[in-house]
Parts: sequence; C-alpha cells; structure tokens
Amino acid sequence: MSDTTESKRLTTAQDYASLIDKFDTFLFDCDGVIWSGPKLIPGVREVIAWLRTKGKNVLFVSNNASKSRPMYKKTFDDFGIDTTDDELFNSGFASALYLAKILNFPKDKKVYVIGMKGLEEELDAVGVAHCGGSDPAEMEYMPAKDYTSVTPDPSVGAVLCGFDAFVNYKKYSKAHTYLTKNPGCHFILTNTDATFPSGGEFYPGSGAMSAPLVYSTKMTPTVIGKPNSHMMDAILASKDFDRSRTIMVGDNLETDILFGQNSGIETLLTMTGVTNEDHLLGPKKSSTVPTYIVNSLGDFKVLVDESK
Amino acid sequence: MSDTTESKRLTTAQDYASLIDKFDTFLFDCDGVIWSGPKLIPGVREVIAWLRTKGKNVLFVSNNASKSRPMYKKTFDDFGIDTTDDELFNSGFASALYLAKILNFPKDKKVYVIGMKGLEEELDAVGVAHCGGSDPAEMEYMPAKDYTSVTPDPSVGAVLCGFDAFVNYKKYSKAHTYLTKNPGCHFILTNTDATFPSGGEFYPGSGAMSAPLVYSTKMTPTVIGKPNSHMMDAILASKDFDRSRTIMVGDNLETDILFGQNSGIETLLTMTGVTNEDHLLGPKKSSTVPTYIVNSLGDFKVLVDESK
Repeated sequence: MSDTTESKRLTTAQDYASLIDKFDTFLFDCDGVIWSGPKLIPGVREVIAWLRTKGKNVLFVSNNASKSRPMYKKTFDDFGIDTTDDELFNSGFASALYLAKILNFPKDKKVYVIGMKGLEEELDAVGVAHCGGSDPAEMEYMPAKDYTSVTPDPSVGAVLCGFDAFVNYKKYSKAHTYLTKNPGCHFILTNTDATFPSGGEFYPGSGAMSAPLVYSTKMTPTVIGKPNSHMMDAILASKDFDRSRTIMVGDNLETDILFGQNSGIETLLTMTGVTNEDHLLGPKKSSTVPTYIVNSLGDFKVLVDESK
Repeated sequence: MSDTTESKRLTTAQDYASLIDKFDTFLFDCDGVIWSGPKLIPGVREVIAWLRTKGKNVLFVSNNASKSRPMYKKTFDDFGIDTTDDELFNSGFASALYLAKILNFPKDKKVYVIGMKGLEEELDAVGVAHCGGSDPAEMEYMPAKDYTSVTPDPSVGAVLCGFDAFVNYKKYSKAHTYLTKNPGCHFILTNTDATFPSGGEFYPGSGAMSAPLVYSTKMTPTVIGKPNSHMMDAILASKDFDRSRTIMVGDNLETDILFGQNSGIETLLTMTGVTNEDHLLGPKKSSTVPTYIVNSLGDFKVLVDESK
C-alpha cells in the first residue's frame, strides 16, 4: 500500500485560524484532549469558550458507558468548562439512541442490560424498557445446580453489554440464553475498549466484559462506540450538522481518528494523550493518518489572545 | 489440500478384535462415549470391564475442570463402572500436573485461581500453593472506586483459569494485574470449551470465562485441555505407556480426535455423541479425520459375549 497521505502539522497562528474557518462543528474526545487524568490541559478551557463565541457547535464524544450524561457533565463542571447535557455523547447514550431511533426498538420489548446505573439512565431517557443491569436480584450468585433455572424470556428483544463492575455468571448465562434462544434478539456492545485507565494503572474494560458472550454465542455484535460509525449515526439521529464542515479532535489514532475516517469527516490529532511521535513515524507506525496534527488543543489559545 | 486419508469403519466382530489387539492403552472421553447426559450407553460397562480382564490400561480424559477426580469418580460409581482416581484425568488435574511436573512451579510462589473447589483440590494433590479461587473474600463485589486497591503481588507466579460459576470483576481485575505486572507470570487455561451442556441446554463454558483476560491482556495463554497435546504431556508425566500402542476414543472431532492427532496417537470416533454423518461426509465436513469409526463403544460387546 503506498503511503501517499500525509498529515498537516499545525504550528502557526495562521494554521490554527484557517482550520477554525473550515469547520462549524467540533467533536472532541475528552481524556488526552481536554484533560489528562485529573488535570485540565492548559489553555483548553479558554479555547472551548472562544469557539462558542465564534458560533461553533461543540460536542463531546466519549466511549465511557458507565456514566450517564449528567454524571459525565459533573467532570466538566469540576474543570470549569461550561457545557449542556445535549452536547455530551457517551457510548451508553449513543447505544440508547441507536436502539430507539435507528432500530426503532419495539415498545413491547425490553433490553437485557449488562452494565451499570449510568447506562440504564440513558435507556430511560429515550424511553427504552430494560431489565437486568443494576437490579439487586442480578447480583446474587447462582449456584451451579441452578443453571437450568435460566430460561428464555421472549420479551427480551436485545442484549446490551457495557462496562459492569458487578458482572457475574448469572448475567452471562441469561444473556447467552436470550441471544441464542430469542429469534432476532439484537446483540449490542457500547464499546470494545480492552482496558481503561484508573490511578495510573489499567484494568479490564468494556470489551473484556463482553468477551464471554462473543465467545460463547459465536455471534457478531453491533459495536456502537468509537471507532465505529454507529456512534456518528446515533449522534446525527439527535443533532443535525453538515459532515463536510465537521472535524473530530482526539488523541487516539485507533479510536478517535479512525472514528472520524469511518464517519467520513476530517480529523485533528492532539499529542497530549496516548499517541507519541513513534506511533506516527516509527517502523511500526499506525496505518491510520489524521488530516491534521497539533501539539495541544491549548495551542489554539493564541487565537483567543489575538482576538482580545 | 488433498484428501487422501480415510477412516476405517468397524462393523464386524473381526474388525473389533483386530483393533483391540493393536492397542494396550485406551484413553476414553466420557460424555458421548460412555454415557450420554444422564444415561449410560448400552454395553459400555461390560466392554470396559472386559478390557480390564484382557490386561488393557484404561484411562478417562475429560475437559471438565470444575470437578476434582474424587467428584468425577462418583459419576462412574453411579453408573456402576469400576475405576480408580489414578485412571481419571480431567483438565484441572492435568493443569496441576503441568504446573508441578512440566513447569516445576517454584515452591515459594503461588497460583492465582479463577475456578472452583475441584480445581483447587487438584493443585493441593500435587503440592502447588494457590490463592483466589473459592476464598469467600474473592466473592465480595468490588465497588468501582476500589479498582486501585488491586495491586501486584510478586508471590503470584501463575494465573490458572477454568470454569468458575462465581466469577466477578474483582477476580478479572486481580488476574489482569498479576499477568501484566508480574514478570514471567504464567497464563494457563484448563480448557477453552465455548459452552457446556446441562439439562439439554448450553451455557457459557470455561473458554468464555477466560475470554476477558485473553482480551484485556492480549497475551496468548497455555491451554491444557483437549485438543492440546499439553494434556498428553501431563498424563505422561504421571503414567508411563507406549504411544504407538495407545488409542484415543471420543465423540468430538475438534476436541477428542484432534487431541489424539496432536498427541501422535491413533483415534477411534464413536457416533453416540456430538458427531453425525454430515460432519464426516457433508459439504462442510471437518478436516479432522479419525483412524477408525464405530457406531458405539457398546458394539464391542459382541467380543465380550463371544469370550463367555
């Protein structure tokens, strides 16, 4: 494969200004772009506030499905970044939108959830009935002799699996039974991240939690989160914007930048997160090439200062 | 690939007799060969007793790792088949033998177990120290904010994962941490069966239970159970026999018969379990070809009757 595509590196005030002129809608990943773990990236708060004064649409797109949008908004509040729930898209809300608006999930069916309170709240928000999830009965362990107490429930029309810190064999066994016994039962994963970071370490993520079901059923699930374009379909089902004047800003080539490419929009990579120069130029460099690269989203602050 | 190998179908008393003459050691899978769910296959009890009178070694080889050999023996007792613990090899005991005899697992290290009491008893039997498993502390759910309480434990030298009806996020999180943080930590799976049958239905099996760790660590585990030849290495570490005069008898092409082939021994397929004629002759037939095929192990009873 020839390597003809190259990213444009943005380094001057003029580079930043012409990028801003080209786009009306900015989709932002958060960790590694806006903040880095517990720390806000310098200049980013000012840049986002300034984009709003220029009349730009600002949306935030995260693969985290364990927090609902109101829970997610609290992080923005804590960093002093103004935002509203309808600017926030996590893979849980996107999964709920996908069920409600794209699948037109029947009103007389319910979704069996492997996931946490935040995911259930997103289903409630779009009026999709659900069971399982944080129901205390699901947390009781099932003794081996009770496997056969798991029986098909024809009212379950989909299994939705996200991160669940209270996952157990009962949940896997019920989900397996619904997927293999209920004709046409949808199999939806919020996202397939292998791990997630916490306190400087990594722990098994949503993709690991759903792995038993993928393995036992041999079915191919519909994955909503980045880098899949289902996430964009779900966002566009609730927000109207022109893709040709939209850019995805992220720090991760394999989720954020690939999501932009899969969705047919341009992309801006920031170097304040998981990507380093070796990923871009080294012998094992990624085949995913962003349209633009900038050291930090905070570098756009030069435009804010100029406009004062 | 040319399809030059064909199985020999055994149908006459002479066919049965010449097979018996060729082999000294008979390895038997159980479900689908000796019994079928709760029912003994007709004639099999008499055939096994007769093999013993002819001085043959009889060994039973199962992928089930949740029962220890004494628990496993009880099933034989219930069917009226005489056997001793040292003729029984399940993937749990084979995993314990693999750790003790093949890896020479250090006495000052311990194995973190995702699995049940039966698996722990097999480790005890070969003197391998372990933690995790059925310890009641492992069954307590871990609230999300406590992820960082999972810390590396340098005394853990291996993670052994089998079927566990009490699996949870704490166990996955600890196992993930040991595998990624402890240098040289072994990653061993008893077996990778996708499902297991119970009461006529199928439920997620050992392979499904270990899938989160394979997915989150991106490591390649050592899999002990059939069809892997590690199972044979473990059996040969405790029993001495001549492979050239040994045959594997099973109902499953992809586990039992492939195990025989991977171990360099001849194989006999029985048609009393999961394999039907379509798997042997149909357009999607398996590429695994047994040396011999017989309708039922019980068909050998004609030799028992002749010898009376």
